[in-house]
Amino acid sequence: MFNQVTILGPGLLGASLALALRERNLCQRVHTWSRRAETRERAIQADWCDAVFEDAAKACTGSDLVVIATPVETIVPLLTQIAPTLHRDTLITDVGSTKNHICHEARKVDAHFIGSHPMAGSERTGMEHARADLFEAAACILTPAESANPEQIKRLRELWELIGMRVVTCTPEMHDEIVAHISHLPHLIASSLCNYLSIKDVTWKELAGGGLRDTTRIAAGDPALWQQILEQNRGEVLRAIEGFQNELESFKRSLQEKNTPTLLAKLKKGKQFRKTL
Amino acid sequence: MFNQVTILGPGLLGASLALALRERNLCQRVHTWSRRAETRERAIQADWCDAVFEDAAKACTGSDLVVIATPVETIVPLLTQIAPTLHRDTLITDVGSTKNHICHEARKVDAHFIGSHPMAGSERTGMEHARADLFEAAACILTPAESANPEQIKRLRELWELIGMRVVTCTPEMHDEIVAHISHLPHLIASSLCNYLSIKDVTWKELAGGGLRDTTRIAAGDPALWQQILEQNRGEVLRAIEGFQNELESFKRSLQEKNTPTLLAKLKKGKQFRKTL
Repeated sequence: MFNQVTILGPGLLGASLALALRERNLCQRVHTWSRRAETRERAIQADWCDAVFEDAAKACTGSDLVVIATPVETIVPLLTQIAPTLHRDTLITDVGSTKNHICHEARKVDAHFIGSHPMAGSERTGMEHARADLFEAAACILTPAESANPEQIKRLRELWELIGMRVVTCTPEMHDEIVAHISHLPHLIASSLCNYLSIKDVTWKELAGGGLRDTTRIAAGDPALWQQILEQNRGEVLRAIEGFQNELESFKRSLQEKNTPTLLAKLKKGKQFRKTL
Repeated sequence: MFNQVTILGPGLLGASLALALRERNLCQRVHTWSRRAETRERAIQADWCDAVFEDAAKACTGSDLVVIATPVETIVPLLTQIAPTLHRDTLITDVGSTKNHICHEARKVDAHFIGSHPMAGSERTGMEHARADLFEAAACILTPAESANPEQIKRLRELWELIGMRVVTCTPEMHDEIVAHISHLPHLIASSLCNYLSIKDVTWKELAGGGLRDTTRIAAGDPALWQQILEQNRGEVLRAIEGFQNELESFKRSLQEKNTPTLLAKLKKGKQFRKTL
């Protein structure tokens, strides 16, 4: 499908994508770049990797697909940096968890950028956790600009589909509203719950069952990555928090006012929704 | 360890306890009772069960251990009902998720009741999900009254330890404060999040990754059981919700005010706490 693919930032997502492409013979060569010498060292030793570069633009030379898999704040600066050296028909995408800011800024850059957000990952980060099947059965959201080349969109969609993803397309604005609710809000809630419980007696948590562990699992995600995500999607995340706060307050009120029918109805609605996930 | 054990309410916890006792040869006979004919029918066919009764008091006749494993609202009424027919040294416990109300009321009943709360379980309920290893490596909280017989406390502790649990002892009041935070609050948060997301576009949830599924898993718990638990622990749960609301508001404010150091510190503290779970 591709001759040469460049992965900028071979972390969990980037390295997993390289593994998935290799496993399915979807590319001939994989080039990679990382800001960190340690990561470059590890990439050199990885089976999926053919060449490692210290310079991001050089890593992209001759590639027909470039995937920017760095933290969200670095995506636009990298795109700007590599754009001048790219081939006219190189397809460029990213795997960032926010899309509005990135796609807005990317329009100013002379390159065929189409935003992707594979909804796969884990609270673990880094190349050492990469897996060829990370993307299987998960959703991937594409946010092409109106001016995007339909052939390029089709190609990008095929890429994600070939590694097992369900692909949907929407505007960057809609993407950011959706993920504020289904990803960023749950993260913030999990982290808030951990912060709250961290001030309590240290022995309490030793009594916790699987429920608390599941509810808070995502709070173990990388703080610096999540700080960037939450800040890049500030407006939508704030709206989502407020919506949740209203619901939580109403839940509390039903308990406070001994309104059993409402409390029970909420617990039932919660269960019903959860079962559809 | 026991000659005859009676399980009142052979649901997930009750039937799992019977299986665990049998697997380890900790009892000779298991009697059971259920309010529901359908459950009694299923119990008759279960390997762990020797006799099924339509009358709770009769099910307890001659048993040296009685475990009340029904929903929390039914525990005290059942205890009151069976007490007159019990042997003087029959040990009686329960597996209820609340302890203050239950232990307070149990003191009025002439029987050797010691409250237990095995912190095991799942969002699935019912005998069909019972497993002999359900309790392994989980915590069990005992809340004996000051007047409780030390020999009986020791015996109850051994029972839970022999099926793999870490046993701790505290007052019923302390128990309810702790579980309000580590169990009831997480449940209520998960259910609130589901309620909030249920009013959004139905297609959004199809895009969700494992994070949302984990965060909300416990919201699939039985609504009627949880309504009783939350109402029996109303005061402590309300205090826990308020504490969490303050933390969430402070998290939101750090994002709103673009206070990156505070936002990052909270994400770090959340990760740190989660890693200790």
